[in-house]
Amino acid sequence: MQKASLVQALQQVSKAVSVSSPIPVLAGIYVEVTKDEVVFMGSDASLTIKVTLNEAAHGLRIHRTGRIVVPARYLNEIVRKLSADVITFDMDEPLMLRITAADSQARLCGMDPEEFPSMDDIEPRPLIKFRIHTGLLKASIAQVAASAAISDMRPVLTGVSFDYSHQSLKLMASDGIRLASSTIFTGTNSGPAAQIVIPARNLGELSKLLKHDHDETEIEIRHNRVRFTAHELQVESALIDGAFPSLSHVIPDAYASELLVERTRLLRAAECVSVLAGDRIIKLDATEGSLALSSRTAEIGEVHDRVPLRKMKGKAFRISVNGKFLMDMLRGMDGEFVRLRFVGRTSPLVLLPEDETSPTLFLITPIRTNDG
Amino acid sequence: MQKASLVQALQQVSKAVSVSSPIPVLAGIYVEVTKDEVVFMGSDASLTIKVTLNEAAHGLRIHRTGRIVVPARYLNEIVRKLSADVITFDMDEPLMLRITAADSQARLCGMDPEEFPSMDDIEPRPLIKFRIHTGLLKASIAQVAASAAISDMRPVLTGVSFDYSHQSLKLMASDGIRLASSTIFTGTNSGPAAQIVIPARNLGELSKLLKHDHDETEIEIRHNRVRFTAHELQVESALIDGAFPSLSHVIPDAYASELLVERTRLLRAAECVSVLAGDRIIKLDATEGSLALSSRTAEIGEVHDRVPLRKMKGKAFRISVNGKFLMDMLRGMDGEFVRLRFVGRTSPLVLLPEDETSPTLFLITPIRTNDG
Repeated sequence: MQKASLVQALQQVSKAVSVSSPIPVLAGIYVEVTKDEVVFMGSDASLTIKVTLNEAAHGLRIHRTGRIVVPARYLNEIVRKLSADVITFDMDEPLMLRITAADSQARLCGMDPEEFPSMDDIEPRPLIKFRIHTGLLKASIAQVAASAAISDMRPVLTGVSFDYSHQSLKLMASDGIRLASSTIFTGTNSGPAAQIVIPARNLGELSKLLKHDHDETEIEIRHNRVRFTAHELQVESALIDGAFPSLSHVIPDAYASELLVERTRLLRAAECVSVLAGDRIIKLDATEGSLALSSRTAEIGEVHDRVPLRKMKGKAFRISVNGKFLMDMLRGMDGEFVRLRFVGRTSPLVLLPEDETSPTLFLITPIRTNDG
Repeated sequence: MQKASLVQALQQVSKAVSVSSPIPVLAGIYVEVTKDEVVFMGSDASLTIKVTLNEAAHGLRIHRTGRIVVPARYLNEIVRKLSADVITFDMDEPLMLRITAADSQARLCGMDPEEFPSMDDIEPRPLIKFRIHTGLLKASIAQVAASAAISDMRPVLTGVSFDYSHQSLKLMASDGIRLASSTIFTGTNSGPAAQIVIPARNLGELSKLLKHDHDETEIEIRHNRVRFTAHELQVESALIDGAFPSLSHVIPDAYASELLVERTRLLRAAECVSVLAGDRIIKLDATEGSLALSSRTAEIGEVHDRVPLRKMKGKAFRISVNGKFLMDMLRGMDGEFVRLRFVGRTSPLVLLPEDETSPTLFLITPIRTNDG
């Protein structure tokens, strides 16, 4: 097979391989040659990635079928270092993969493919199956996943809630300090509704693997897992048990002031003042005409920056927030402008896209400081 | 001053800054504004890097003189994050640097510049001062420095010997297993001769900082340090005490076989087989027409590769060496071909450039293996 196709497939499935896994077979890549396909698979038990290369589409030449699991680290390195363009895999000895390319030849000891987690269906039919625009799915994941919790004090908060109803898929994540929510309209359908929670880390890997933004991704929800299929790629994730908290009551429905500012300009100012933000606290000070950002670190110094306001409704205000969280949100958003809604000194600051019909929303809880 | 010049100068001097230094002032960058220059300096006590920007050459506007030391990490980050092209430094308050750029302003607490190591000359005149072609100096450092020892069991071996005589500068390094040597002809001069040992790490940083390959670098040797000057850059290194061992007796003057092979092809083969090289051992097997490379890791597998020989004098041979050391040497060399000289099973393998007049030489001590 062509080195380029092989390197790409191995790179993709390796995202799910945990080299230091206590289960030896999970430090490997599963390779299966069937009559007309070569399948590669990597898994860390929570996330499984499968790439299927078709004989005709990839100009493969299959002589014999077989399957094996080989250590991911060595397989990747050897394939990358081979200088020929065409690479041959042979499984003529049991539990041994022979790799040949021009003058080079390697033999890698393998592991039993029976021990590798299977992606075959135990349940004959998924509970729910629908298709979604890949570009919109990636954008929503980028907006929402960063707001999930890192620590697993409450495991359900390390995930992103997928709330699928008859017309839409709503993604939501919150770590208790910030919240992000985005909705994709899927068109009406008559199937059942469902809410699941997917580990944010797995969605992040999925998002990086999805390439064809203008195509659709198929989503299949099963009892304890979800599967995404796009072209040659299948990504399956375990689900997080437990109910995702209902958070609609924390979203303010009124506000005291609203600003419109250039998104990248605000992001750059936040990056600049964050350099000296002790405990990550940055202060926002909205007055007529401009939004001032500032931070200080005791005994080191302070930074001030200023962003012009495009529009302002309501009164001047002052609020302190976690600078990293603010930057994460601004980076996840698209569009030239962003709206900031101030509700009150102790209420979350709301970030919204300029487009008032956009179903995307971010909340960030303020930090109380002594000096106001 | 222009952001681009400032970012570059800070980046250069930061190579000598040790952020975790127990001496607080060494975690800082020294900034001095004189009548017509701005000087930046970083130092870790062994290595000091100084960049001098001239007012006229860099379009600076100097209003007032002054000097200060500010924490390198914060200074670098703030300057990089400022979005304006023109940046102003102010030292109007004692031990405080004010940085202004368009709408942004930062104040950084500074340290006493008196505490910063000075590069001013205590000795009025260097012992030896000469100029050398920058490109040749960089090439020699690249070839030789990688062979210096990493651990400081014998401190003198962590350095590169600079042996300056009336016609040449000879660089040599050895960690006991490998040796590299390269000579640069400097033209005759009537000054005194000297041998010094410079920390290999400092030479590596110097080499990366030298940009103008076609110009010359001035080298000044003093009692306990050496200074390199090129354009706006001055790099000063402490010397390593102690005599560098005389190694001329380990260089074989006869050989049993000599091969000529393509350098990059041999390097690629060594990289490929190194993937499975247990204890880094790779085996070389020279026969009529080709050089076979191989390695194995118990319970994982083995790799074989083969490089065609361009020429071979003498008999077939087999020898095992440290693969990483072989790759370091091949990477340090230039030219399309490399000569390999086999002296005997227990003697070092010699690597030489194709050009027989080249004053560059590498030795690598073989590893005894059970299976030959």
